[in-house]
Amino acid sequence: MTKKPLVLHTEPTTFGQQLWDDLEEIAEVVHMPETTDREQFIKDLKGKYSECVAIGRGYITNHRVGLFDEELISHLPPSVAYISHQGAGYDANDVAALSKRGIQLANCPGVVSAATADTNVFLMLGAMRNFDSSRRNLEAGMWPTTGSGAGSKIGISPQGKVLGILGMGAIGREVRDRVLPFGFGKIIYYNRSRLSPELEKGCEYIDNLDDFVAQADVISINCPLNKSTFHLVDDALFSKMKEGVVIVNTGRGAIIDESAMIKHLRSGKIRAAGLDVFENEPYVNTELLQFENVLATPHVGTSTEQTFYDMEKLVVDNIRAGLTTGKVLTLVPDQKFEDFGL
Amino acid sequence: MTKKPLVLHTEPTTFGQQLWDDLEEIAEVVHMPETTDREQFIKDLKGKYSECVAIGRGYITNHRVGLFDEELISHLPPSVAYISHQGAGYDANDVAALSKRGIQLANCPGVVSAATADTNVFLMLGAMRNFDSSRRNLEAGMWPTTGSGAGSKIGISPQGKVLGILGMGAIGREVRDRVLPFGFGKIIYYNRSRLSPELEKGCEYIDNLDDFVAQADVISINCPLNKSTFHLVDDALFSKMKEGVVIVNTGRGAIIDESAMIKHLRSGKIRAAGLDVFENEPYVNTELLQFENVLATPHVGTSTEQTFYDMEKLVVDNIRAGLTTGKVLTLVPDQKFEDFGL
Repeated sequence: MTKKPLVLHTEPTTFGQQLWDDLEEIAEVVHMPETTDREQFIKDLKGKYSECVAIGRGYITNHRVGLFDEELISHLPPSVAYISHQGAGYDANDVAALSKRGIQLANCPGVVSAATADTNVFLMLGAMRNFDSSRRNLEAGMWPTTGSGAGSKIGISPQGKVLGILGMGAIGREVRDRVLPFGFGKIIYYNRSRLSPELEKGCEYIDNLDDFVAQADVISINCPLNKSTFHLVDDALFSKMKEGVVIVNTGRGAIIDESAMIKHLRSGKIRAAGLDVFENEPYVNTELLQFENVLATPHVGTSTEQTFYDMEKLVVDNIRAGLTTGKVLTLVPDQKFEDFGL
Repeated sequence: MTKKPLVLHTEPTTFGQQLWDDLEEIAEVVHMPETTDREQFIKDLKGKYSECVAIGRGYITNHRVGLFDEELISHLPPSVAYISHQGAGYDANDVAALSKRGIQLANCPGVVSAATADTNVFLMLGAMRNFDSSRRNLEAGMWPTTGSGAGSKIGISPQGKVLGILGMGAIGREVRDRVLPFGFGKIIYYNRSRLSPELEKGCEYIDNLDDFVAQADVISINCPLNKSTFHLVDDALFSKMKEGVVIVNTGRGAIIDESAMIKHLRSGKIRAAGLDVFENEPYVNTELLQFENVLATPHVGTSTEQTFYDMEKLVVDNIRAGLTTGKVLTLVPDQKFEDFGL
């Protein structure tokens, strides 16, 4: 009997333990100890993981061993052929460095869209309505003396407002589908390219980012993070937005220049923000959290029992497909099987 | 020139000052000082307000002079013919006592539905996803050490879940319309009577409250408060709910027996709650606010610039219609013009 290929799982298992157990029919699965740090991990890659063929990793792996950047990828053993990333955004992996090594990278598109869009709508409503300021005043015991809304600033309704969706991919479209019944005056979007009318569903495409932000009362950031979107929303772009704009971000923190956002929160140019992602997660600028008009959650966009299970399932399915067919199921869009001679 | 009728406004003006100014063409409008308490108000009703014909009042009036209960209504001068209530729920007014006096009561149906439904969706998503627990942990600086979601309990998605809407009036239906794209497995509702298929939009009517609560994973309370709904959701009804039920209330606090809810939050029977209304507003049981799985806002369901303006406009329009035609525009459903001989 030949030895089963070694599969390394660097992420904690949540609801999918059975899926990993089932994978053991065709692979030897090793779950990395949660105490492993980057130094230890690099050692183990040359030691007990040196015959590893596939790695399942995700967001928590960043907290344990850091990014799969060029340096870390240089330490991967030659046996590694597949990296299966748990999440839609896969910016924690240097795709170019993986491609150079001939390593396929799979992500989890689709399965995270619904939960992320739900989070996006929560933060959008919370920011527009100033609900977190009301909550703060309520918890501070201010209601009996400060009257309506416990003295918080009155919010705004979607009616008559222009919602701008920055990035009309799967998640942006799921956000759009959810907010349609809320009655925004108009929904505009900015995207690398215009969608087909069936996908557009009456939303208006704006092909210039400056024009786009100048029109929007609420800006929802739903694009991926990559070299061209890093600090896309910077001081100059904030300056072109409407006075009193509402910002929602469930994409990635670094799409926004956070210090510029803080400047425009201080000035009042930004009316309110709903943020699930931050530049230096899991460390968050405490000034940002102190604004009463900032509703913040700690990157829980995809965090539901169902989504975690679905993501773990796709992570395992990608590894299984790699091991059995030589091709992962959901190769990231900036890799092509042809480039691997497949 | 005959003297203009006296109109008393006991609520603070927010965005509709121009509306009240315009009303002065046909009425003398007096805005009650915010320092007026119940005792002073009763004195003034016999003094400077003794020829008052119409009163515009609302939620904040409760904090100033208390409910328009039988006692207070007994002090209204005989000239009072119209009370125009700012809000959809008008339980702060004793309708029977007003009817006996021949006083028409108008409320603001319709205009508050959208904003209240928006609030309801925010609280529903927040409770299902445990977002306020994540937020608490984030603000407490726990994220760097506690991992995913800053250590908060992972939430649930609408997919496959049964949403139960208790009260399928205007607001219940607006909630339903908004959550349709979120993909609940099924939406059921309990109501005094079954809706027509056009209004039902595929939701399933359950004609027995016990059966209704036994089926629902999430229960959204959207009925009005009246004698038959006071403490409708009591200890016995909580006991019939599913383990891990999610409760959302934007109706009125007293529809729920709050001490029973606290008991079932303590036991874990209730997974999470999203609450905008409380039994003894503006005083809120501090134990309720301490549960990390309770997301609470201080009765801000209708609190948006647009809705406040629209409500003030309808309050003024009702008074204007009363003064000019003898009939308010939106008489509350438990009064009939015929009963006034109109």
